[in-house]
Amino acid sequence: MPSSPSKNHAAPASAAPVTPAQFADRLLDACRRKGAPICVGIDPVYERLPEEIRHRGPANPALDAAGASTAIRRFCEGVIEAIAPYAPVVKIQSACFERYLWPGVEALNKLIGCAHAHGLLVILDAKRGDIGISAEHYAAGLLATTTFSDLSRQPLIGPDALTVSPYLGSDTLEPFVKVAAAAGKGLFALVRTSNPGSDELQNLRLADGRDVAQAIAEMLAIAGAPYLGAYGYSLLGAVVGATKPQDAARLRKAMPAQLFLVPGFGAQGGTADDVRACFNPDKQGALITASRSVLFAYEKTSGDWRPAVAAAAADFHRQIAGLLA
Amino acid sequence: MPSSPSKNHAAPASAAPVTPAQFADRLLDACRRKGAPICVGIDPVYERLPEEIRHRGPANPALDAAGASTAIRRFCEGVIEAIAPYAPVVKIQSACFERYLWPGVEALNKLIGCAHAHGLLVILDAKRGDIGISAEHYAAGLLATTTFSDLSRQPLIGPDALTVSPYLGSDTLEPFVKVAAAAGKGLFALVRTSNPGSDELQNLRLADGRDVAQAIAEMLAIAGAPYLGAYGYSLLGAVVGATKPQDAARLRKAMPAQLFLVPGFGAQGGTADDVRACFNPDKQGALITASRSVLFAYEKTSGDWRPAVAAAAADFHRQIAGLLA
Repeated sequence: MPSSPSKNHAAPASAAPVTPAQFADRLLDACRRKGAPICVGIDPVYERLPEEIRHRGPANPALDAAGASTAIRRFCEGVIEAIAPYAPVVKIQSACFERYLWPGVEALNKLIGCAHAHGLLVILDAKRGDIGISAEHYAAGLLATTTFSDLSRQPLIGPDALTVSPYLGSDTLEPFVKVAAAAGKGLFALVRTSNPGSDELQNLRLADGRDVAQAIAEMLAIAGAPYLGAYGYSLLGAVVGATKPQDAARLRKAMPAQLFLVPGFGAQGGTADDVRACFNPDKQGALITASRSVLFAYEKTSGDWRPAVAAAAADFHRQIAGLLA
Repeated sequence: MPSSPSKNHAAPASAAPVTPAQFADRLLDACRRKGAPICVGIDPVYERLPEEIRHRGPANPALDAAGASTAIRRFCEGVIEAIAPYAPVVKIQSACFERYLWPGVEALNKLIGCAHAHGLLVILDAKRGDIGISAEHYAAGLLATTTFSDLSRQPLIGPDALTVSPYLGSDTLEPFVKVAAAAGKGLFALVRTSNPGSDELQNLRLADGRDVAQAIAEMLAIAGAPYLGAYGYSLLGAVVGATKPQDAARLRKAMPAQLFLVPGFGAQGGTADDVRACFNPDKQGALITASRSVLFAYEKTSGDWRPAVAAAAADFHRQIAGLLA
C-alpha cells in the first residue's frame, strides 16, 4: 500500500483556492482505508428489486417513470448503506436511470449525492464520447460540479469519475481531461470490454503487429502522462474487463500509469485469478468491480435483502484483499 | 428519386396491429417530399442564442438549469418552424441538453415532440454504446416509444433514429436493432467521424490491408443486411463525416445498403463536392447534415433571427438539390 502523499498537499497559508487532490491519489487512499481496491457496480433493474421495494413502487413501471425512478433510488440507497463498510467506490450505470427519462436522471443525480454522503467515490458509467464542443457539453453536464441553484441548494458535485469512449480519437478526450484535471476528478476510457463480441474489433491485428486494444492503450498512456498524482497514477484510467485475463498482462505493461477499472467480476464470470494480471507488480493500480453478484445477492437467499447484499460485499472484499495479501 | 413502396405497405383489412413502415423507407420518402436529402443539426449553446431569447432567459444559465433549458427549447422550436419547409430531418445533439441535467432531458424530449408535430423526422445524436443489458436500457429509454403516463398523456414516441457507437462489437448493437426493427426506427453507427483526430484510430492499417473504419463498415453491412426496406436500404445506417471525402467512396462500396448520415457540411468545412461520394450511383443513400451554419445563421446578419435561419436552410437545400439534379 502506498505511503501518504500528504506532504504534497499541505494546506496553503493564505486563503487562496485549494487545488483539489488528484483523482488517482484520492481513489488509492480510499481503497487503502477500506482495505481492498473494490467497486460495487450499481445496475438496477426494476423487475429484480426486492419485493419490499416493489410493493411500495408502481405496479406497472412502464406507466410511471417517476415512481419507478423513486423505487430504484430507494433500493440503491439501501445498497449503498449496506456496502459502505466494505467498498470504497461505486460505479453507477447511467443507462439504468436514463431509461426512465428525466425522472431517472434526477434520481441518478440524487443517488450520487447519497453515495458521497456515505463517503464513497462514484464512477458514472456512461461511456460518453463525442467530438469538439459536444464533448465539452458532456463533460460539463456529467463530470463537472454544477451550480444550478434551481435544482439544489448545494452545488451538485457530480461523480468523481466518468467512463468515456476513446474510439473517436484522443482530441475527443481532451475536454473531459480538462474538466477532470481542474476538479480533481478522473476518467476511465474503454480499452478491453467484457462482452462476448468485444474481440470483433478490439482484437483486430494491425499491420504493425499490435492489435486495436493495444493501440488504444498506447494512445491513453500518452494522453494521460501529463496528469500523474503523487502515487504515479494518471487521472486518465482504462476499462479492462475481468473476462479477458490473456490481455490484461500486456495491457498492464502498455499502461503502467493507468488505473484499471475491471468490470465483470462475479456474475459475468471473472475470477480472482483472472484479475491478478490487472495489478502492477506492487499490487496496485486496479479497481475490481462486481455488479450483479452483489446487487442482487438476495435472490439466492431468504430473509431481509440488505444483510444479503452486505454479506456479498464482505465476501467480495475478502476475495480481493486475499488476492493482494 | 425512388418509386413509392406503398404497394408493400397496403393497409390491412382487419384491425390487426399495423407493422410500422421501415425506417429507411420513411426517411427516403420524407426526403423526396421535401426535394433534398438534408438534415439540420440542432446543437444549441445558450451563449449563442439570439438576444431576444436570452433577454427572456436567465441572466446566468449556470445557476438556472430549468430556465436555460426552456430558453434553449424555445429557440430550437423557432428553428424547427423556420426550417420545416426545407428539411425533412433534424438531428438533435443530446449533449447540449444533458449539460442541463434533468430539466435539459425534459426539454429534449419535448423538442422531439415539437419536431414530430412539424412533420420532421428526428435523429437523436447521443452516440450511445454499451454491453448487454445496459444497451437494452439505452434502447428502451432513448429509442423506444415510452408509455409513461405520469410524464405525458400521449405515449412519448421518441426519436426516429439514434446514433450509436459500434466499437464494442456487433453484439452490443443487437438490442438497439431489435427495438428499431419493431418500431420502424433506425440507427446510425459511427464509422468515420469529422473531427481532426479521427484518423488516429479509424485510419489504422490492419494486417489484412483494410483499415479500422473499413472493418467497422463491413461489420455493419453484415449486421444490417436482414433489415432492408422496400428501397433496398437497411435500418442500420452509418455516420460518415463530410470532411473525409477520400474515404467516402470506398466506404460507400463497402456499405451499399447503409444510409449515410453525413455531418460536417458547412461550418466544419465539408462542401457539396466533398459529399458527392457519399451517395450511391443512383444519387441516393446519403443524408447531408449542416448544423452551425444553419442554426446560428443570424450571427452573420442583422434583423430577425428566424428569417436568417430559414434562408440558410433554403440555401443548404438548394446546394444539395443542385448536386443531385
